[in-house]
Amino acid sequence: MLQRCFEALRPARPMVHCITNSVTINDCANVLLAAGARPIMADDPEESAEITAACRALVLNLGMLSPRKLEAMVKSGHQANRMGIPVVLDPVGAGASALRIRAAHTLLEEVRFAAVRGNGSEIRVLAAGGENHGGVDAAPGECAPEQERAMAVALARRIHAVVAVTGETDLVTDGTRAARCLGGCAEMGLVTGTGCMLSALTGALLAASPEQPFAAVCTAVCAMKTAGELAWAALAPDEGSGSYRVRLIDAVNRLDGPTLATRAQWEEL
Amino acid sequence: MLQRCFEALRPARPMVHCITNSVTINDCANVLLAAGARPIMADDPEESAEITAACRALVLNLGMLSPRKLEAMVKSGHQANRMGIPVVLDPVGAGASALRIRAAHTLLEEVRFAAVRGNGSEIRVLAAGGENHGGVDAAPGECAPEQERAMAVALARRIHAVVAVTGETDLVTDGTRAARCLGGCAEMGLVTGTGCMLSALTGALLAASPEQPFAAVCTAVCAMKTAGELAWAALAPDEGSGSYRVRLIDAVNRLDGPTLATRAQWEEL
Amino acid sequence: MLQRCFEALRPARPMVHCITNSVTINDCANVLLAAGARPIMADDPEESAEITAACRALVLNLGMLSPRKLEAMVKSGHQANRMGIPVVLDPVGAGASALRIRAAHTLLEEVRFAAVRGNGSEIRVLAAGGENHGGVDAAPGECAPEQERAMAVALARRIHAVVAVTGETDLVTDGTRAARCLGGCAEMGLVTGTGCMLSALTGALLAASPEQPFAAVCTAVCAMKTAGELAWAALAPDEGSGSYRVRLIDAVNRLDGPTLATRAQWEEL
Repeated sequence: MLQRCFEALRPARPMVHCITNSVTINDCANVLLAAGARPIMADDPEESAEITAACRALVLNLGMLSPRKLEAMVKSGHQANRMGIPVVLDPVGAGASALRIRAAHTLLEEVRFAAVRGNGSEIRVLAAGGENHGGVDAAPGECAPEQERAMAVALARRIHAVVAVTGETDLVTDGTRAARCLGGCAEMGLVTGTGCMLSALTGALLAASPEQPFAAVCTAVCAMKTAGELAWAALAPDEGSGSYRVRLIDAVNRLDGPTLATRAQWEEL
Repeated sequence: MLQRCFEALRPARPMVHCITNSVTINDCANVLLAAGARPIMADDPEESAEITAACRALVLNLGMLSPRKLEAMVKSGHQANRMGIPVVLDPVGAGASALRIRAAHTLLEEVRFAAVRGNGSEIRVLAAGGENHGGVDAAPGECAPEQERAMAVALARRIHAVVAVTGETDLVTDGTRAARCLGGCAEMGLVTGTGCMLSALTGALLAASPEQPFAAVCTAVCAMKTAGELAWAALAPDEGSGSYRVRLIDAVNRLDGPTLATRAQWEEL
Repeated sequence: MLQRCFEALRPARPMVHCITNSVTINDCANVLLAAGARPIMADDPEESAEITAACRALVLNLGMLSPRKLEAMVKSGHQANRMGIPVVLDPVGAGASALRIRAAHTLLEEVRFAAVRGNGSEIRVLAAGGENHGGVDAAPGECAPEQERAMAVALARRIHAVVAVTGETDLVTDGTRAARCLGGCAEMGLVTGTGCMLSALTGALLAASPEQPFAAVCTAVCAMKTAGELAWAALAPDEGSGSYRVRLIDAVNRLDGPTLATRAQWEEL
């Protein structure tokens, strides 16, 4: 399943429209190119829907949010829904401000998502409407795995989307099926934007396999964890988190279907 | 010609003002520094003309456009024209939206450019006023080389600027002379922003040799292609597009006039 | 002193809110993560104060300024002052436009800073209210060291903050004590954002040792210079400024207290 989904991406060369934050926008573009997709970034309400119209997936990322960008997201989301192309939501720091909470809930009301990807606390905000002041990085251990799973399943059912809760272990569910992906590398937390990159990759994989959203999201999650491991293995002894970021993109670029199928540590639950 | 132009840049240390997109803004700044220029980025209409006033070239890049940035571009363009310093237009994704088409045509009317640099489909939009939905990357083979050349020559004559159409082969023309630059490396397409970086470099080379715009643009185009080759040669077997991006900046930083003169594969037509 | 301050940072894992420019925002986030802090970026006036409320330091950087960002900076500055958490000002290109001069002076009036970090010409603008058209990089040798020191001491006393004037030699003063830090590496000037990264690090070190602002700023300055040296030593013969940028983040990530204490070339004056 992973191999077939992953191997569908490069021949498809899908254009993926990202409305995303300036912290990691370059990494998102480069990871999409590395994986074989074609990124296009545009976040002004005057043009965003038109840009979406030329694409095969849309990725909405709430980092560095502004009302202007939120307006562009809603317009692009409507356009994507009209076209039936997959939309991914990355609710970066979802509980960190009233603006982001409102944005997350507005988007869930206005736009039909194919997938939502966030860390535990971000997904909790979407699931519960609650507040989260742990910032953009997940606070570990705030919630037991079974609770997290129940929450993700409930959210997936409510919004009819695949939900990915990522962290040390990644959980993917469409409300019926669920899978767990282990592995990866703790040092990914020392590079900003690994979550944003994963959300961008998720958009690309959904664009290439829109009829199999659960498989596409599992593939994205497993590809990122596998890339994290391969990048770590490639790191020289005198290198650190700066080189690790570069080698992550390298690893996505060099990843192929058989390697992914062999190395990914995942299981359906 | 290439060597003399290239060697004029580092001693000049020109300040280059870029109004550009957040996807590749860091790479543009770093490539300018690597080549010996001094970048300054500012895109607010309240200050853009003042920033331009302290510089020796202006680079306008339509990626991630907004009405606010377009206003800053017009103001800075007027200021640059008053001072007589070279202005470069990079019409990123020119046909991708009505906003970008309008922006491109507004800028061509309001501002006198020394050079325009884009891929084939972007230059076609400027030349024809037509629409282009191929996104920010060139769709290969959409137009025969002779047609592309006729189009570039006509545009160069109409706007009295040097036009560079870049891709697998680069074409540079001022409407009278024309040159072709071969070489480079297909993997440059796996790194976002190599076009933006080239446009920034073009601004720097024009700043150092404003009286020789054709030579300056040829030098920029050949320098980028040569850097692409040198970066590819430096890539280790286990590296990919992440490392290639880093090595591209390295190659620009290490490039010197004799190497450029020896390696550049160009010919006047 | 340096070692104790530096070693206080990683266990504290402080959240640091940066309102900063898109040129170097990714590097600022990555250098904070590399040093053990947790970055959060947000620059919209609708949410900035709320984001600050969850953090332990605030860093305001005037690069790529806009009126919207200035409004967010004032709101976040007020919030930080109410909470008593340290605020750092990086007056990037302070004299380059009326907007930036006005912004710098507005911020100094509205917000109580723990530290200000800039190059000589930027600090001169704050000290004198004068104009500076040298762009974002320091023009060397514009002012004798004794004058620079007197200016920094006067500014520190006037605004009750630690002032760091960085360049070939770094000067830190709180108006009473003063220290000088030598070393570093001239090639840091070939990488955009080393000043921005240092200001972000300053915020992190102040967050971890808010009661010792002079020591915290000295530690940040010495850590960055030491990282610059270690990164230079790690550079392979065929590498250039692109790799140097990556190795700078590596060096911050790998730096530890004993190495800093042994290598930093600093002295109290």
